[in-house]
Formats: sequence, structure tokens, C-alpha cells
Amino acid sequence: MKIIVDTLGADTHPAEIVKGGIEAAYRYDIEILFAGESDSLRKIIKEKGEHKESRFSILPASQIITMEESPVQAVRSKRDSSLVKGLRALRTCEADGFVSPGNTGAVVAGAIFTLGGIPRIPRPGIAASFPSLIGDDMLVIDVGATVDSHPNHLVGFALMGSLYCQSIKGIAAPTVGLLNIGGEKHKGNRLVSRTYELLEKGPFKFAGNIEPHCMVTERPVDIVVCDGFVGNILLKAYEGGAAAVIGILQQFIKENFIAKLGAIGMQAAFTSVRAKMDYRSYGGASLLGVDGVVVIAHGRSNAEAITAAINVARLAVQNNLTTQISNNVGEVADE
Amino acid sequence: MKIIVDTLGADTHPAEIVKGGIEAAYRYDIEILFAGESDSLRKIIKEKGEHKESRFSILPASQIITMEESPVQAVRSKRDSSLVKGLRALRTCEADGFVSPGNTGAVVAGAIFTLGGIPRIPRPGIAASFPSLIGDDMLVIDVGATVDSHPNHLVGFALMGSLYCQSIKGIAAPTVGLLNIGGEKHKGNRLVSRTYELLEKGPFKFAGNIEPHCMVTERPVDIVVCDGFVGNILLKAYEGGAAAVIGILQQFIKENFIAKLGAIGMQAAFTSVRAKMDYRSYGGASLLGVDGVVVIAHGRSNAEAITAAINVARLAVQNNLTTQISNNVGEVADE
Repeated sequence: MKIIVDTLGADTHPAEIVKGGIEAAYRYDIEILFAGESDSLRKIIKEKGEHKESRFSILPASQIITMEESPVQAVRSKRDSSLVKGLRALRTCEADGFVSPGNTGAVVAGAIFTLGGIPRIPRPGIAASFPSLIGDDMLVIDVGATVDSHPNHLVGFALMGSLYCQSIKGIAAPTVGLLNIGGEKHKGNRLVSRTYELLEKGPFKFAGNIEPHCMVTERPVDIVVCDGFVGNILLKAYEGGAAAVIGILQQFIKENFIAKLGAIGMQAAFTSVRAKMDYRSYGGASLLGVDGVVVIAHGRSNAEAITAAINVARLAVQNNLTTQISNNVGEVADE
Repeated sequence: MKIIVDTLGADTHPAEIVKGGIEAAYRYDIEILFAGESDSLRKIIKEKGEHKESRFSILPASQIITMEESPVQAVRSKRDSSLVKGLRALRTCEADGFVSPGNTGAVVAGAIFTLGGIPRIPRPGIAASFPSLIGDDMLVIDVGATVDSHPNHLVGFALMGSLYCQSIKGIAAPTVGLLNIGGEKHKGNRLVSRTYELLEKGPFKFAGNIEPHCMVTERPVDIVVCDGFVGNILLKAYEGGAAAVIGILQQFIKENFIAKLGAIGMQAAFTSVRAKMDYRSYGGASLLGVDGVVVIAHGRSNAEAITAAINVARLAVQNNLTTQISNNVGEVADE
């Protein structure tokens, strides 16, 4: 198996990204094709003593799509960027999967243009892992690929999320919830009211509306479905709420001697919080609904996060996730 | 000044709500009109030794609008509910403000039907206080009154939020931010793209897009404007993120002796977190854009939260907030 790793356009230095790629190659026994500036990549790989290893190769690219660029325009104009060239290499089967910590919008736009969609899946969705205190991670889909969604887009997300949980997580009949601002059926906006009615018709194990405040503590479902704008607000607000509590505690500890002593005893607890809430251990979110395995890593990913993102891609390839989605969408769309 | 307090329909027992009302009456030297079941209210007030005090009176109501009811239907059919009777008493000037910890949707629907809107304000918005680590609370508007909003609704929220900050918080030129999933102008969905262009035209001090994860730690603006569905997701996700961290720490402390010792030293720090993140100290969110002072308290408000919510109403009455909005909307709508 060969995974393409985009080394340009992230907030992280290419050397850190390569480090994560090398770790993944050995840990999972796979090949890595690094897309980026070839001289500099050759140098980095050499410095790490891996230049004689045939499992690492380079896909030369001379352009960078930055975080600030408008996705569609960037993808159209920068044909020699690591992002576009990486996706083209995936399209022509030079590799089995693609991982990028670059501009999320550009990865989505590039994947749609280059790989195309999956017939009968109306829109792609990014499926992100969401932590829980009482069990396995949940999956939230969509967290930013499709904004201004329609009800049938959300039904597509529910389908893809279910197939993801079945084939990759081994959950036989995963439960689907609809992100909403109240538990009752009549709550919410037009999009969720109409989506509720469609999801009720199945074939999902639909568990009704899910409110954001109880997700981590109660883990009510396996998959939470929402519009991409709302899902992205959800993730970032969760991050903000967690950061707020940690910030208040740190401020207090700094100013207070007894708390400082207490904090020493609590060190391991803080480490445990960080591990649970840290995107680095999740690493990557799968872009589902395009014709190929594409994983989006956080723009500030360190080597560990890149390794984790590559593993997400590896599992999707190993379990034929794209084919699973193509083959099973028919049954659902016919309902 | 007289404030009506709705004692029915919340998750909290009427006795706890009355307790908060009595505290507010003495603390702020105001009168309270309790709307609810009169025999039971008389008994509660008597038990608290306040039955001879003329500053407390009762507005009898025989019906309860529950949290589960469909707002519009409930408000139309339950004309003798504490919620509808309280709003009618506000309309007929029997009191100066109205506070309810009941069904939020029903308070919004009831206020629109009973009090009416403010000319040229297209939709009402709920303005909630949002904590910050580095200064005064922010104001988020809307957190649930208007879903499926249009760009001009959000411009109305920006206007009302600015006037709220000017007249109640004394901020001369409050800054307005637009809740979005990225910092750049082109980010987001159709609603925020169009709203961005309108807000740029002023007359607000527009500070651009605000992402959720940095709100508490960076306090980028005084007012954050968003659609009501998105704003409600934001608040609940923040609550969830904070609860997640606290939950992980507690779980760890329970299982770990050294952490348990540490936690003793950290007690005051945890108290400080709770105080900062606790809705009880904020108490109430103002429903702006209806013709009267209406404050929505949390459905699980304790006495302290009710006292705080009554104070929010008192400040709005004292500063003529409704008149301020009516008188200043003209200038803006003409732009």
C-alpha cells in the first residue's frame, strides 16, 4: 500500500510532516509518496537517514496552496501544487490514499475536481472523530466540506457515516443522531426538520435529535449528522470550551500557591485531558463521498498527528471504504 | 419598578423561583409580580415570611406551558398560562419587565404575539452573555429566537447588540464580529458571506469573522452575531467542551490517589472554573427586538440565577433599552 502525503501548505514544517510519514511507513509497513519541493524533501529524507529506503519516494511540486487562498481559485490556478499533483497521482492510481494537512477547502475542491464524486451521493462530507468519556469515539459528519446543505445531503452523510462505522470500526448496526438545538422532533430550523423526516424512514438506526452539550459525557449515538458549517462551529466551540476550562485552571494555578502544589499532584490528570481532547491523537478526518481515499489532517499537525492521519487513510484503503460506499448507496437511494 | 416573574413551566420548583424573586426585590429595591398558581404562591410567600410585604404580588394563572410543547401552539391555546398572562400584563403596563425560566420558544412566540416587534427590526434575537478569560463578558446574538435567518436579520442583531452594549455596559463604540468557520472574508456559507458585505457598510465597528475556538481565550470583540440555530449550537457545544474537561479530570481524580491529593489543593481552582463557566452567574438572556423588556432564564435556574435574570431585566428597564432600540433603528435602516 502506498499513501501520498502532502508536505506543503500546512502550518507545520515539511520536515515534521516527513517525520510523521517515516514513522507511519515503519509502523504500518506501507510506502509513502511525499508530495512537495523535491530538493528540500530529498535533503530532509537524507538527514533522517532514509534516502536508501525504497519505501519513500518524492512527487515533485513547485507551488504551494496557502491556508488563506480561496479554495476553488487556488486549485484551478495552481496545477503544480503538491495538493493538486498529489490528488492527480491518486486519480491515476500511483498510490492508494492521500493525506493533506493543507487548506481544507482546497483539498475538498481539489478532490471533487480531480477524483469526482460517487454516483448517487449528492455531496461529500468530512467525517471527524469526536471524543467521548464513556466509550469509543463518535463520528461527526459533515464538519466543513458542504455548507448550505439540503436534507438529502445529510441523508447521504448518514449513509456514509454508517458504512464507515460498519467497515472500519466493526459496529454492526451503528446509531445515527441529528445535531439539533432541542430533543423534540419539532425543534430546530427548516433543514433539520426535513432531514428528521427523511432519516426516520431509514434504513438507518435513527436515534433522533442530539444536543451538543451532552455528546462527550453521554455518547448518545455512533454518528452525528449535520451541515458542514454547523459541524465546524461544533468542533471549534468544543475546542474553545475545553480551552476555556484549562485556561481558567492555569491562570488560577499561576496565582495561587496551594493550587500550585495541588497541580503537581494533578499533572497526570491534565495529561489525560490533553490526550483525550487533543486532535493529534485523532490525526485525520476522512473526506467521504469522493472517488478515492482522502484524509484531511489538522493544519498544525505535528509528526504524531501525521502518523495518525496516515493510519486513518490506511484503514480506509484496507477496508475498501470507497467501494463499500459505491456498492451500498444504491439500496438506500432507492428507498 | 415592577418585574413579572413567571413561576411555572421551568424545571425548577416555584418555591426556588420565588426565593430568587424575593432576593432580587430587596437587593435592587424593586417590586415583583409572581405569575403562577395563586394558592400555592400565596403559601410559598407566606412561608418565607413575606406575605405582609406590599412589594410582592401575585398574577393568578391556571395553566402551564411545558418545555416539550410546541411553542406557537402552546401560546395560542393556553391563554391562562403564567407565560401568556405575564406577557399580557407587561403589554398593559402592569409591570416594567418580564422574566421567565420556561420554554424559550414559547417565550419568544408569546412575546412576538403579545408585545409585537419594533418597527424596522426584522426579527427578534436573544442576546446571551458569553464568558471571557481576559475581560468583560461578550454578547452573542442570536442564540435561539430566529432560525433560518436572512442577512438583514443578522444586521438587526448587530444593531441591537451594539445599542445594548452602549446603553447597559457603557461601551462607547462596541466592536461587532460575525461568527464564522474561518477568518477570511470568503469563508463560510451563503448567509455569512452576504452578511459580511452588509456589516462592512457600517455603521458598526465591524471586526470581521470570529471563529468559535478563540472566543473565551482571546475575547476578540464585544458582540458576536450569528443565526439563532448556530448560536444555540455554539453555547451548548461550549458547555459540552467545558463539561468534557471537568468530567475527564473528575474521572481521573476518582481513580488516582496522588491526583486526589492534588485535587484538594486545586479545590479553589475548580470553584473558580465553575463560577466563570456557570450560567447561574449570568442568569438571563435578553430577548431584543420585541416591544418590551423580556428576559429568558435557564430552565434549570436556581434562586441565584433567577435573581441575576431579574437584574438583567432591571438594567434594561432602567436604561430604557427598548426605547433606545426603537429610536436608533431608523438611522441604521436608512443606510
